[in-house]
Amino acid sequence: MPKFTGVVPPVVTPLTETFEVDYPSFTRVIENLIDGGVHGLFVLGSTSEVVFHAAAERTKIIEHAVKVNNGRLPIFVGVIDPTTDRVIEHAQIAKSAGADALVVTAPFYARTNQAETIDHFRYIRDAVDVPLVAYDIPVCVHIKLERNTTVTLGREGTIAGVKDSSADDGNLRYVMLDMADRPDFFAMTGSEIVVDNVLGMGAHGVVPGLANVDPHGYVKLWNLFQAGDHEAVRREQERLCRLFEIVWIAQPRTSAGSAGVGAFKTAMRQLGIISTNVMARPQRMLNSEETAKIDAILKSTGLL
Amino acid sequence: MPKFTGVVPPVVTPLTETFEVDYPSFTRVIENLIDGGVHGLFVLGSTSEVVFHAAAERTKIIEHAVKVNNGRLPIFVGVIDPTTDRVIEHAQIAKSAGADALVVTAPFYARTNQAETIDHFRYIRDAVDVPLVAYDIPVCVHIKLERNTTVTLGREGTIAGVKDSSADDGNLRYVMLDMADRPDFFAMTGSEIVVDNVLGMGAHGVVPGLANVDPHGYVKLWNLFQAGDHEAVRREQERLCRLFEIVWIAQPRTSAGSAGVGAFKTAMRQLGIISTNVMARPQRMLNSEETAKIDAILKSTGLL
Amino acid sequence: MPKFTGVVPPVVTPLTETFEVDYPSFTRVIENLIDGGVHGLFVLGSTSEVVFHAAAERTKIIEHAVKVNNGRLPIFVGVIDPTTDRVIEHAQIAKSAGADALVVTAPFYARTNQAETIDHFRYIRDAVDVPLVAYDIPVCVHIKLERNTTVTLGREGTIAGVKDSSADDGNLRYVMLDMADRPDFFAMTGSEIVVDNVLGMGAHGVVPGLANVDPHGYVKLWNLFQAGDHEAVRREQERLCRLFEIVWIAQPRTSAGSAGVGAFKTAMRQLGIISTNVMARPQRMLNSEETAKIDAILKSTGLL
Amino acid sequence: MPKFTGVVPPVVTPLTETFEVDYPSFTRVIENLIDGGVHGLFVLGSTSEVVFHAAAERTKIIEHAVKVNNGRLPIFVGVIDPTTDRVIEHAQIAKSAGADALVVTAPFYARTNQAETIDHFRYIRDAVDVPLVAYDIPVCVHIKLERNTTVTLGREGTIAGVKDSSADDGNLRYVMLDMADRPDFFAMTGSEIVVDNVLGMGAHGVVPGLANVDPHGYVKLWNLFQAGDHEAVRREQERLCRLFEIVWIAQPRTSAGSAGVGAFKTAMRQLGIISTNVMARPQRMLNSEETAKIDAILKSTGLL
Repeated sequence: MPKFTGVVPPVVTPLTETFEVDYPSFTRVIENLIDGGVHGLFVLGSTSEVVFHAAAERTKIIEHAVKVNNGRLPIFVGVIDPTTDRVIEHAQIAKSAGADALVVTAPFYARTNQAETIDHFRYIRDAVDVPLVAYDIPVCVHIKLERNTTVTLGREGTIAGVKDSSADDGNLRYVMLDMADRPDFFAMTGSEIVVDNVLGMGAHGVVPGLANVDPHGYVKLWNLFQAGDHEAVRREQERLCRLFEIVWIAQPRTSAGSAGVGAFKTAMRQLGIISTNVMARPQRMLNSEETAKIDAILKSTGLL
Repeated sequence: MPKFTGVVPPVVTPLTETFEVDYPSFTRVIENLIDGGVHGLFVLGSTSEVVFHAAAERTKIIEHAVKVNNGRLPIFVGVIDPTTDRVIEHAQIAKSAGADALVVTAPFYARTNQAETIDHFRYIRDAVDVPLVAYDIPVCVHIKLERNTTVTLGREGTIAGVKDSSADDGNLRYVMLDMADRPDFFAMTGSEIVVDNVLGMGAHGVVPGLANVDPHGYVKLWNLFQAGDHEAVRREQERLCRLFEIVWIAQPRTSAGSAGVGAFKTAMRQLGIISTNVMARPQRMLNSEETAKIDAILKSTGLL
Repeated sequence: MPKFTGVVPPVVTPLTETFEVDYPSFTRVIENLIDGGVHGLFVLGSTSEVVFHAAAERTKIIEHAVKVNNGRLPIFVGVIDPTTDRVIEHAQIAKSAGADALVVTAPFYARTNQAETIDHFRYIRDAVDVPLVAYDIPVCVHIKLERNTTVTLGREGTIAGVKDSSADDGNLRYVMLDMADRPDFFAMTGSEIVVDNVLGMGAHGVVPGLANVDPHGYVKLWNLFQAGDHEAVRREQERLCRLFEIVWIAQPRTSAGSAGVGAFKTAMRQLGIISTNVMARPQRMLNSEETAKIDAILKSTGLL
Repeated sequence: MPKFTGVVPPVVTPLTETFEVDYPSFTRVIENLIDGGVHGLFVLGSTSEVVFHAAAERTKIIEHAVKVNNGRLPIFVGVIDPTTDRVIEHAQIAKSAGADALVVTAPFYARTNQAETIDHFRYIRDAVDVPLVAYDIPVCVHIKLERNTTVTLGREGTIAGVKDSSADDGNLRYVMLDMADRPDFFAMTGSEIVVDNVLGMGAHGVVPGLANVDPHGYVKLWNLFQAGDHEAVRREQERLCRLFEIVWIAQPRTSAGSAGVGAFKTAMRQLGIISTNVMARPQRMLNSEETAKIDAILKSTGLL
């Protein structure tokens, strides 16, 4: 069995009206997730608005999460910036601050190819002795981690697992088949809406942003899957799909990025978990009309 | 007339064998450009491998360039990072270090839309009182600055000009037509190979990475254009196109990014301007076989 | 229950050495599928090289299939050409020739939008009284049938079902949720490698090109799924995934199109079903080296 | 000098209210172009809605154009369908009907690669003894004719020239440089808005859909360019750019395809050249509000 499995949500970073990190709310976000039964925390993922935070703030965010968590769950930390040496700097800080694993994307802005991307992960792993998770998120970095890239890195031990936010489940299946003789290697999906499928293919975990809104739902789905109750898994997944529709409400007034995390934040505020739905600049936050639509979905899916 | 016009090359940042900035070589790069007759310097553009440099190194690069330049030419500084507030931090440093204008891209990784991109530029301009240049480079940031975005920012005075590396000359033409009643607004192209076209449409400058290899060529092209000698402009442009073919030599062994700037660095080393062709990690540098092909092109285009 | 369910393979069209349709081989392809237990036949799909066949040949292909089938299975016929009125012509011929349902893509080459695509299906349905299946294949037509498009057409009765070759399983799930109160509407997937997932979400059928090579495999998968044996379903799906790897052997020497259908044809020739692996011009057929690799996969997956 | 040069508009195909070709209007379209001084006619290009017309109608369109033209100008005929042998059928008909050159795209829907695309042109040229023009239109066929593809076909004599609608002027420049020693090879641009640029790089002709609305404008631009009056060329090009803005009026209500050709047809109706602005199904025609905006542009650019 891999070291890390289960529901590992990317933790939302709440902000104050003046765009500071709202640490009291952040504490509540973490406690709400742990109360919900999740199996790990992923701090500074895309859902955390990681690229909006400067290095000093990131350090505080990690330290706060580690302190609140207090050893209860493993903590993944995203070390996301465009290029290798800058990622290494973040990685060293994250390691010092207590990360159990580091989540690394391909370079971005820089237009590297697959071979250079493989080297990117190798350089980072050489520099920092913490398990690495390859984060496949072409919608943000505009390069796909190809099957051969992930498998090469996995077989040589550079990465301990992969978090797939590419929506290419066929490719993920081949990666898992290729790694089937390496039981310590793990595959997690970033999907909110086909988690049942990916678990059915043999994945070891799920990293759903939507779990910030409804941790119990994903934990329930996970437990039902472990129990082999496929019909109930599907019903819970379909309820979560209906909840996930909140992410499209603000589009196209806002971008896809703002609409998604903005909907999570708005729902969390409506549920009393955080104090504002403020998004880091220049993203737009959801307005009152959009909030009303979110309330309606929270009600119809049993959360409000 | 706009304040900034002419040939404003994005300055290459040479590295040592151990991946440090090679400041003696950097001095020679700048002196070679000034000797070549260029009209401005663009420090920390994409060609400089800007996203590979951490903030502290960027500050040193700007300060070194300002010191070497010693007021001889205007200096543009790229303040390139994924999101608004991080760009503002770079912008404040660059201003303090003596930048005459700041070059800003759309956010990246973050998936913002056109409206949020407009706000991005406004927030930066509000925070830092230096002329801003909008840098349209979809191949790196994966969003195009649409005509309406650039024109809105230009007409309200948020940006002083645009540097277009999108290769969408038709769109640039419409931007220039829309701004025709604002003679202080400038448009520059990042193209190396259709500079004659873009000047012919009324652009005010050119920002060619290849000018690091052959500043005289682009200055000659500029001067011939000012003199109205269209036939000679075309001949010089065509010679520069033949020189530009160096950027494809290392592909697909390396990525497009490495192959392009790597070719510039290799050519500059062969011409004695810099000491190595080392690229920031994880990019690959050109090998000896590729260098031989570059030598051949340098010879056939009259540089070696 | 929808009228059409189960395994409905897109039938390969074998060619002679001189690029004619090889009807004796075509008979064997159909008999092999029926022997394999499939539940329907899809003639003139993308796998049949439909866009390479002129109208007269298409008519002969349909008539031959109808005659060989002799009423044993329902027959879907692809009516695939760029624009509405040309599709209607094909549709009228296919209806006369005995098609049980017609499979229709969005327009292509023509750059229509979603609203015009909706009208496209409506015009065709108005003209020809046969059940329509919307064929979502953006890799060929370069437009996705959006959720709202498919659901609008389904709810108003213009289409009887959808065949999804877009690999966007999340979107397909939402379409099925939106149509859950319409038990006669069906959803099928064109995937070969995540059939278990799509059936698990509630899909009614599968249209795998690879079933031309191994009909028993997909029928077995289907039967195991009906029996609720999830572990065995997954094992069979994984064996089929290993078999599916034949489609990448000839790339990049050939295009993706040639490599995929070319691999099916080559495997079918090696299994004695058809006489050549000839592809319609200008596609390239697989060579002997590539055939050897296909043989190896046929052996390792138990077919040879 | 190449055999074909100058302004060669893609001729609009007017329709009646009942979606038939309106031949009396078609006659007027052709006479208006010839009166305007154009140097050739391109029948059945994308602007003609070629892929909406079945083979029999295409034959009538060619025959009508040949008869009306009566030998006054060379006639290019588009032979546009997805695959090789179907194109050859169109090509044989077009040759018999009197085409002076045939315009051929890469295959579409079919997903061929560059090597297969090269073979596509070779098979067609082998089958039909008429000069071929390679039509580079990735927005419709979703593959770019790469520099090496066009140059290979040009140097071996398979194609007589290229019509570039890819907007990649840098690539076109390299094609022209590579073919500079072949004075019979011609390059034309499909652009309406950077014609001055492309002529300045040495192109031999222009194929502007907008010339259906204003043939005099493009002929004037051509003549001014031949006379070397660069300032006047630019002024005329800029006026035509303002006129070209009609193509965006109906978007996003209609698709880009409908909005562009639909705007040409609407403007031509307002100018009295044709009787309706009907578009082939399922495209949408422009409405009265959009027509009013077109009138305003026709006035401001001196046409109404």
